[in-house]
Amino acid sequence: MARITIADIARRAGVSTGAVSYALNDRPGVSQATRERILAVAAELGWRPSAAARSLSGARTETVGLVLARDPSALGAESFYMQFIAGIESELQRRSYGLLLQVVPTLEAELATYRTWRAARRVDGVVLVDPRVDDPRVRLLSEPDALPAVVVGDPTLANGLMNVWTDDAAAIRESVRYLHGAGHRRVVRVGGTEGYVHTLIRDEAFREETARLGMEGVVARTDYTPGEGAAVTRALLEDGALRPTAFIYDNDVMALAGLGVARELGLDVPAQLSIVAWDDSALCLATYPRLSALSHDVTGFGAHVARRLFDRLDGGPVGSFLDSTPALRLRGTTGPVAERPA
Amino acid sequence: MARITIADIARRAGVSTGAVSYALNDRPGVSQATRERILAVAAELGWRPSAAARSLSGARTETVGLVLARDPSALGAESFYMQFIAGIESELQRRSYGLLLQVVPTLEAELATYRTWRAARRVDGVVLVDPRVDDPRVRLLSEPDALPAVVVGDPTLANGLMNVWTDDAAAIRESVRYLHGAGHRRVVRVGGTEGYVHTLIRDEAFREETARLGMEGVVARTDYTPGEGAAVTRALLEDGALRPTAFIYDNDVMALAGLGVARELGLDVPAQLSIVAWDDSALCLATYPRLSALSHDVTGFGAHVARRLFDRLDGGPVGSFLDSTPALRLRGTTGPVAERPA
Repeated sequence: MARITIADIARRAGVSTGAVSYALNDRPGVSQATRERILAVAAELGWRPSAAARSLSGARTETVGLVLARDPSALGAESFYMQFIAGIESELQRRSYGLLLQVVPTLEAELATYRTWRAARRVDGVVLVDPRVDDPRVRLLSEPDALPAVVVGDPTLANGLMNVWTDDAAAIRESVRYLHGAGHRRVVRVGGTEGYVHTLIRDEAFREETARLGMEGVVARTDYTPGEGAAVTRALLEDGALRPTAFIYDNDVMALAGLGVARELGLDVPAQLSIVAWDDSALCLATYPRLSALSHDVTGFGAHVARRLFDRLDGGPVGSFLDSTPALRLRGTTGPVAERPA
Repeated sequence: MARITIADIARRAGVSTGAVSYALNDRPGVSQATRERILAVAAELGWRPSAAARSLSGARTETVGLVLARDPSALGAESFYMQFIAGIESELQRRSYGLLLQVVPTLEAELATYRTWRAARRVDGVVLVDPRVDDPRVRLLSEPDALPAVVVGDPTLANGLMNVWTDDAAAIRESVRYLHGAGHRRVVRVGGTEGYVHTLIRDEAFREETARLGMEGVVARTDYTPGEGAAVTRALLEDGALRPTAFIYDNDVMALAGLGVARELGLDVPAQLSIVAWDDSALCLATYPRLSALSHDVTGFGAHVARRLFDRLDGGPVGSFLDSTPALRLRGTTGPVAERPA
C-alpha cells in the first residue's frame, strides 16, 4: 500500500488539494469548519505529518545518520570504520537510538543524502567524517535550519560546528622523532586520499618535523587500499640508491602490504626497513613481526563522537573536543638502522 | 522537545486521555463532534500515528534493518561485513532506502531489537545473518505478523522464510580434495563460532570429505579473531610429532595470523605448511606469499540478499536462492607436501 498523500485526503474530504495544504500547514485560505474536517480526515487516514510539521512538533526520529563516501572495497579492507561504528552504536543503544548508515560513491551523493534526510526528517542528527578543505558538507550543515551535526576532524575546519578530533600532527611528529633517534634519515609517509583534512594535517606535520630534524621526508599518495600501499612501497624500495629506511602508513592494511613487499624483495624487517602502521588494530598483532603502530581507541572515539552528538540534540552548546592522541606502540617492525643506504 | 503524546492532545482539546484514545483509535465512546475536535487537535500538534495506525495505513519506512550480534572488535578485524553491507547499500540506493544498522552484544539483544523495530515500525524488513540451529530469531520472524525477512544461510534452517545461501559444503570439499591431491594427509579446519549453522555445515563437510579420502581432519574452534586464529595454529604446530601440513581458516584475518605463526616458528610456507583463507579479500593479496583463498563476491552477495528482500516487500513469493559457490583460488600459500611429518 502506498503512503497517504494530500490527494488521498482531498478526495476523502471532498475538497481541493490546495485546501488540504492550507489546512495541514495552518495557513489562511479555508474556513475553520473545512480546516477541521480536513484535519479529521487526515488523522483518520493515518496521514503522517510532513517534514516541516514534524520538525515544528519536535518529534524525534531516534535515529542518527552516518554517510561514508568511500569505495566499498576499501571500506571492507580497513578495520577503522567497523570499530568506529561499533563505538557509536554503544552510545546509541543506551538511548535506544538506531544508526542509519549510507555508503555512497561520491561527495555529491553524500550531500544529496543529507538533503533528503533533512527534508524527510529521517534522522535527528548526523556524524560527518573525513572532512575536507572548504568542505561543501560542512557548509550545508552550517546552514541555520540544517541537521544537528558533529564533525569528526580538526576544529579549524568545523566552521563553528560541534567537533571531535585527534591530534594527528602530534602523533606523526612523535613517530618521526622516534625514527630520527633510531638513525633513520630517509623516511616515507604513505598517506591516504589527498582531499581529506586529516591527510593534509599529517602531511604538513610530517614535512615540518622531517625538515626540522634534517631528514629526507617523502609523502606518497594512495587510496588506502593494500594494493596501492604495496605499489608505492615497491616503487620506492626498488630505487636502491636512494632507498628509504622507514615507512609510516596511514592505515593498518597498507602497512601489512608494505611488510609483504619487504619480504618479497628480501629485505629484513626491521634491520633494513622499519614500518609503522596507523591506526593500530588486531591485524597489527597478527603479522610476524608484529606491526609497530600509532594506537588509538577507535571504538572509544566513536562513542565519544556519539556522546557529543547527543549533547547537541539535547540543546547543549557547540564545542570542540580533543579525543586521546594516538600513541606510538613499538613492536617488531621498528628498530635502529642497521645498514645505511648508499 | 518531546514527542507529542495523547496527554498533550487531551490537554489542548480539553478532554480526557481516554477520549483521545477512543477518537484516535476510531472506537465508540466519544461523540462525533468530540472525535472530530480531537483529531483536529492531534493533526494540529503534529501527532504521529501509532505503530498500529501506521501499519494499517501501509506507510513505508523506506528503511531496511540489519542487526549484527558480534563482538565489535571482531567485526572490525573482518572485512566480510563491510563488503556485505556495501553490497546491500548498492541496492538500497536504487530505491532511496536506508540501512538501519544495529550492533548488539547478544542474541537476546538482537531479538529485542526486532521486537522494537516491529512495534515502532522502524523498518520495512530485515536481513538476518549468522543463523543458528533452532534459531529463536528465525522463529520470531516466522510469526504471522512478523517483519518481512531474508535469512542469509542454508535453506534447511530458514523455516520457510526467504533465504539466500552459498554452498559452503561444496567449497570446503573442493579445498580438501585439492589438499589431498597435493599430498596432504593431516589437515586442520580453523572454524568460527560454534553455534552458527554455516560453521556446522562446514565442519560436517570437512569431516566427511577428509574421512572419505582417508585423511586426518581436525576441527579447531575460534571466535574469528586473529588472536584466537594464531593461538590454535601455534598449539597445533608446536606438537611436532603430529604436525598438520595444511590449515583452512574460516576468515582472512585468521589465515593471516596463521601465516604469521608459521613464520615465527620458522616454517616455510608453502613447502612445510599450506594455508587457505575464507573469504578471499584485498588482505589475501597483501601478504607475501599471497594467501590462497576461497573466493566469493561478498559485495555481490549483499546486493543479491537486498534484491530478495525487495521481492518480499513487493509481495513476491518466498523462495530459496543459491548465490555463487566460493571458488578455490590457488596463490602462494598452498602447494605439495615437501616434507611429511614423522
